[in-house]
Amino acid sequence: MKKKPLILVSNDDGITAPGLRTLIEIMNEIGEVVVVAPDSPQSAMGHAITINSTLHCEKIRVTNGPQIEYSCSGTPVDCVKLAVNELLDRKPDICVSGINHGSNSSINVIYSGTMSAAIEAGIEGIPAIGFSLLDFKWNADFEPLKKFILQITIKALNKGIPSGVVLNVNFPKLKEEEIKGIKICRQANANWIEEFDKRTNPLGREYYWLTGTFINEDKGEDTDEWALNNKYISIVPTKFDLTAHHSIQELNTWDL
Amino acid sequence: MKKKPLILVSNDDGITAPGLRTLIEIMNEIGEVVVVAPDSPQSAMGHAITINSTLHCEKIRVTNGPQIEYSCSGTPVDCVKLAVNELLDRKPDICVSGINHGSNSSINVIYSGTMSAAIEAGIEGIPAIGFSLLDFKWNADFEPLKKFILQITIKALNKGIPSGVVLNVNFPKLKEEEIKGIKICRQANANWIEEFDKRTNPLGREYYWLTGTFINEDKGEDTDEWALNNKYISIVPTKFDLTAHHSIQELNTWDL
Repeated sequence: MKKKPLILVSNDDGITAPGLRTLIEIMNEIGEVVVVAPDSPQSAMGHAITINSTLHCEKIRVTNGPQIEYSCSGTPVDCVKLAVNELLDRKPDICVSGINHGSNSSINVIYSGTMSAAIEAGIEGIPAIGFSLLDFKWNADFEPLKKFILQITIKALNKGIPSGVVLNVNFPKLKEEEIKGIKICRQANANWIEEFDKRTNPLGREYYWLTGTFINEDKGEDTDEWALNNKYISIVPTKFDLTAHHSIQELNTWDL
Repeated sequence: MKKKPLILVSNDDGITAPGLRTLIEIMNEIGEVVVVAPDSPQSAMGHAITINSTLHCEKIRVTNGPQIEYSCSGTPVDCVKLAVNELLDRKPDICVSGINHGSNSSINVIYSGTMSAAIEAGIEGIPAIGFSLLDFKWNADFEPLKKFILQITIKALNKGIPSGVVLNVNFPKLKEEEIKGIKICRQANANWIEEFDKRTNPLGREYYWLTGTFINEDKGEDTDEWALNNKYISIVPTKFDLTAHHSIQELNTWDL
């Protein structure tokens, strides 16, 4: 019998998040599962790592499945680094991150801790996928996603994800039968318009809360935003070579 | 007389960092300077933003130049968002970030708070440049960089940076006369091999420090690493559309 794949699971909503619990349940059907997830919510941590402080990481007692679980004090990227370089005795066959409570489509990918965990795995040469649901509620319904996540993960294990690429998978907030299918997309060229809510604390000092509105002026029908708005699951192949290769020639005309 | 350009300055080493002080000094020669920088070191914060907590931002008294300065409790990206959406009365003509104490070449760009500040400005439609010196010491010598930073910034203001692109400029640790020139490069395909230093705290609990070794197996002579190792300043045009466009076709063959 072929050895079961080793699956590393992480997220940014923290080890207790229902989205993570659903992902563990799905992965237990496919392979040998090791979870290394933050001990507290780490949403919007981007690709942050802990370099000026220490990390704690505890193996926790698991009573609801065969998986092994670690709870870590760091960021999602710290979790993946700890897993790969310290906790696991072999390289995982795949890393899955999520299921994120909330969208990581379009520009959100760059702020996302969930996607950064997947991207970090990609940087370390591990096939990786981030899964997110367009519902930020703690009690969001992850049931409709299960069969698709199973299908996408098995396909990725069988086909192999292109080198230097990580999959960013987002799900519309719909019932299973309402989902029309899966589209391979590009990241929509959309953005947040921020507003800071300015308040005064009980001691008279001003402070701010970040708020914002997501604005998509990209009318393309090949984007993740279009797919999600049209009842499709979006998959964006995402890379970590940030070079704008097409601009090298233009910058060479600057004669610096 | 033409109005002076409005220049937003930020960094990740914090408002007191000598690298930031040097950058302010250079920018005062070119335009009207507003500094919005973290009140504490924020290295390796990547594209993190503060969404589950509050932000403080104080205008500070400046005695050493014409610039306006704000000190902010958040990450480098928070600083740029606050500057653009709350503190400035018009859109800056350019945003410069740094000078970072330490390299942001190759894969370091993705972990860098300094580059994330520049990238956030780029996302907001502002021409932006991150500057970094390959010397992480607090008392690093930034003098040799001055004429080049002035030249690159003026060129960017005159020529305009391509849309969707941010410049990642790294300087070798050399005297001015030893620097051979400037190369437009791609990001080297290099990586960190991490090792976690495992220790026991005074209460008997284990903890980790992240350490690592930078490994470059990319032998290309068009990379930032090659340029820096060969006494050139590297400029990588860097983008925030993370789509791996070349992989869309391949993923479409998966028949999901």
